[in-house]
Amino acid sequence: VLFLTSSPKKINKEKIFDLKYSMLKKEQNMKKIFLAQIDTIAGNIEYNSKKILDNIKYAQEKKGELIIFPQLALFGANFENLPHRHKALFNLEELAFQKIIEHTKNICVVIGYLNKNSQSSIAVIQNQKLIKTLSEGYDYFDIDGEKFAISFNEVLDINKKNLSAIIIPTCTASKSGKEFELNKKFSELAITTKSNVLYVNQVGYSNDNVFEGASRVYDNTGVLKARAEFFKEDLLEITNYQGKISNAPQNIEEKAFENFSLNYEKDLDRTYQAILCAIKGYFDKNGFKKAVLGLSGGLDSTISAVLLVDALGKENVLGISMPTKITSNNSKQDAYILAQNLGIEFLEVPIAEPIEVFTDNLKEIFSTIKFEQYNKSTTYENIQARTRATILWSISNECKNMLPIATSDKSELYIGYATINGDMSGGFAPLADVTKTKLFALGHFLNKNRKEKNAIPQNILEKPPGAELKFDEAKGRTITAEEDNMPYPFLDEIIWLIENKSYGINELLKHKYIFENQNKISEEQKEEWIKKFFDKMQKAVFKWHLLPPSVIIDRHTINQNEYKHPIISKIY
Amino acid sequence: VLFLTSSPKKINKEKIFDLKYSMLKKEQNMKKIFLAQIDTIAGNIEYNSKKILDNIKYAQEKKGELIIFPQLALFGANFENLPHRHKALFNLEELAFQKIIEHTKNICVVIGYLNKNSQSSIAVIQNQKLIKTLSEGYDYFDIDGEKFAISFNEVLDINKKNLSAIIIPTCTASKSGKEFELNKKFSELAITTKSNVLYVNQVGYSNDNVFEGASRVYDNTGVLKARAEFFKEDLLEITNYQGKISNAPQNIEEKAFENFSLNYEKDLDRTYQAILCAIKGYFDKNGFKKAVLGLSGGLDSTISAVLLVDALGKENVLGISMPTKITSNNSKQDAYILAQNLGIEFLEVPIAEPIEVFTDNLKEIFSTIKFEQYNKSTTYENIQARTRATILWSISNECKNMLPIATSDKSELYIGYATINGDMSGGFAPLADVTKTKLFALGHFLNKNRKEKNAIPQNILEKPPGAELKFDEAKGRTITAEEDNMPYPFLDEIIWLIENKSYGINELLKHKYIFENQNKISEEQKEEWIKKFFDKMQKAVFKWHLLPPSVIIDRHTINQNEYKHPIISKIY
Repeated sequence: VLFLTSSPKKINKEKIFDLKYSMLKKEQNMKKIFLAQIDTIAGNIEYNSKKILDNIKYAQEKKGELIIFPQLALFGANFENLPHRHKALFNLEELAFQKIIEHTKNICVVIGYLNKNSQSSIAVIQNQKLIKTLSEGYDYFDIDGEKFAISFNEVLDINKKNLSAIIIPTCTASKSGKEFELNKKFSELAITTKSNVLYVNQVGYSNDNVFEGASRVYDNTGVLKARAEFFKEDLLEITNYQGKISNAPQNIEEKAFENFSLNYEKDLDRTYQAILCAIKGYFDKNGFKKAVLGLSGGLDSTISAVLLVDALGKENVLGISMPTKITSNNSKQDAYILAQNLGIEFLEVPIAEPIEVFTDNLKEIFSTIKFEQYNKSTTYENIQARTRATILWSISNECKNMLPIATSDKSELYIGYATINGDMSGGFAPLADVTKTKLFALGHFLNKNRKEKNAIPQNILEKPPGAELKFDEAKGRTITAEEDNMPYPFLDEIIWLIENKSYGINELLKHKYIFENQNKISEEQKEEWIKKFFDKMQKAVFKWHLLPPSVIIDRHTINQNEYKHPIISKIY
Repeated sequence: VLFLTSSPKKINKEKIFDLKYSMLKKEQNMKKIFLAQIDTIAGNIEYNSKKILDNIKYAQEKKGELIIFPQLALFGANFENLPHRHKALFNLEELAFQKIIEHTKNICVVIGYLNKNSQSSIAVIQNQKLIKTLSEGYDYFDIDGEKFAISFNEVLDINKKNLSAIIIPTCTASKSGKEFELNKKFSELAITTKSNVLYVNQVGYSNDNVFEGASRVYDNTGVLKARAEFFKEDLLEITNYQGKISNAPQNIEEKAFENFSLNYEKDLDRTYQAILCAIKGYFDKNGFKKAVLGLSGGLDSTISAVLLVDALGKENVLGISMPTKITSNNSKQDAYILAQNLGIEFLEVPIAEPIEVFTDNLKEIFSTIKFEQYNKSTTYENIQARTRATILWSISNECKNMLPIATSDKSELYIGYATINGDMSGGFAPLADVTKTKLFALGHFLNKNRKEKNAIPQNILEKPPGAELKFDEAKGRTITAEEDNMPYPFLDEIIWLIENKSYGINELLKHKYIFENQNKISEEQKEEWIKKFFDKMQKAVFKWHLLPPSVIIDRHTINQNEYKHPIISKIY
């Protein structure tokens, strides 16, 4: 036998190690399990299965007995209607599934896939045999006489106790307050069932969702014994239900959801990490590497720039200042200082000339057209925003793998205070689910917590927001956004109440707002703002339909992947 | 008693009439039923319930015994996630529902609504009493001893025979081949059950769908006895299961679905009527009245203009020619003649100047930027398309109730041959689900069938399509779209096979195309086109996400209301 082997020495070594290891294991009753927290691409079976096979191989080499993959590990997360349109994907998945079975010698694999009826399913494969599949509820299986449960849903109803472990493969998105809830739920489950709990989640960005990973282990007394990375791929090694506990984003282990507050501390680090994960994921999965954005010296473009730098690297971000005649020197300077602080390439491209040409052309057109015209319109303000977007798209067309960024925030999108083909336009909208008051808090957080402190000029975090599109002659400055709309703290509380409490107009009128604590406002004023909000929101629905790909951060959003809305302008 | 009545004469008259009528009815055993084919607004309970009450009142005045409304008549069609976000709508619906019950004296009302669990439900109300509700399956009820069935789904499994009628309230969208299928299904149902069949559908546009109406009656031998209008609101009066049979769009009663053909005759009139219904509906429901579009002298803008004129009236359509230096005189002339033929206001706005300013600015930027640039890009071509869109959006901002139109067609959207913020941009995209070869056929159909014959210059229907964005010096003319991509008949057959046969790349390579019958093409050429298609399609997915509201015409589309797709650029 020795003569047939090409490297007998190696084999001997391995054999000796195997023997030693197996003795050691028996002695200590040591069980080695891997939680494979992977990032998938929807429908890209080749990409996903290669990753799965690599992870299994690694676990086999490390003598693992069990490796657990998340739900939909093989087909990919958020596949939407893809399999219905492209049925050939089922065949590719079937082939990949068979190949995975072949590669499970001496190991047990629990893995999520999509069955032929398009149901998210879980398979248990043991030593090259498929022993179990399920598409709902829960079931049991053994490894070397030890009893395990697999639960398809997070909602559990296990009727056996003293199991070795309850395995929960999942694929659920990051949410404010989720860590607190997970901890509570699984800790209670472990105690009730007197069993270890193994939870394995997907990680990464897919179709406007961010999966946060954070796969984990609770022991049978309900204590957290291991946790994988947040927002990063990880292959968490567990020995006797113990392993490394990775850090969570700041403060997220505290409850953070039930009441609105202008203090966002419990959710800022998560928000930051989730958006970075989203930017990286979207760019990677679509073959982009670089971003270009307009730097106005305002809050939205500033925060966007910082996030892009942290996600893509400063060498991959291009900031363009596009001042007009009414752009203040302060704004120009703030944009310049920010770019310097971030170390990104920065260009000033004055747009007075194209705006003048457009304006002259349009004035001539409007004097000719016989259709009735508005006395007051936003036409010339919008021209500025659209000219900027045209320049950004042109730069992205010309530079390799570059995407223009839409910087609109959630507060403004809710009331349609964003220009179609203007600041709403881009290849990705990182802030579309972050309200303005939260963005201010995030700005302070970034200045305090990033490695490079205070990259954001203090001025940007202090001045009132405004797009600098309209000049107020009486005041000698451009109109602020709050003058055009309503105070942001008030606006953001309305949004929160609608999204989290399902408040209708009557409940909103009765509600006592945080803003009212410090500001005396009349009932008439309050009613005016609330009605203005509904009026603007209903007209904005059409714009939401044109929102570029973005990332869902809050429990509820205007993002169509979470809230599909009919396009009609009048309900209330 | 006489003294307490304010108008005794009137009452006496009515009493006499009632008596006569009731005798007449008894004598003839005459049953009067109304099919209320209404157009609803999703979530606008006030609007929908007023319409419902008006219809009931009319039916009562006409001594109807039964009035049937479609599914979701009260809450509105295509409500999406609206009730989850705005729970107050359930309370509004409940109030409206009670009011409807109060207004059903001496009449039976069958009506669709949304129950508190967000299930589409049907209620039977008789003489101010709610006697039955159902959310699935079927059930029975009596009127004056006559037995009726109501079926919630179109899929029927009625186990009683010789009913007076089977009532099917529905809310299903228009599709190619549907009329043939409906006829077959209901005719068979009527024969099998020996019962009359009453089918009541919604009509109108909601969230990218068009409901065609065409509510109808089959007698118990399976013969069509009455049919309401297609694509229009109608209150169809039925006496003893007979009434008016409205005309269907040309040829749709023939089967038209199973095989791809470049002969679209069976579906052109339906396509035309469905798009008109969509344009009217979208504009009405969003408060718009007028449309502005670029007229290039090409097929897409031409067909769009004709449809807009027929939907909104020629006085509400504004055509803008925006030639550059490379726009041919023929194109300019074709656009002008078209506008003259249609009788719409027409303006020529040369865009050479803004394009020159942009081009000069960009050249300077590109010489400064340190990022790697493409040798070949579409930057300057896109500038033309984006400048045009900026002008159209500006005009729509300035003119009252005006919307700019995106003219992109389905063939080009599939392969991303449309510019973001350019020809893809607008408030509505009427042709987004019509392929190029079908548009040519539609052009000929419109020239032949509209009241004003041959409004479309023959030249437009004969020249090869092309956006006139790129000049070919060698050929002395601009590049055509087929030179950039592939022949449209070939492209459109690929699209049809993917949508209707779920063909994957292997099946597409094996397929024998109609285009091959008349054109000798090598296997290499075929493979190149098919691979090019998949490559371009995957890169186009991101653009589909930015498509304006449009209208679903085919059985399958890229419209996200029919095909929700993950945004990732690589699967195959």
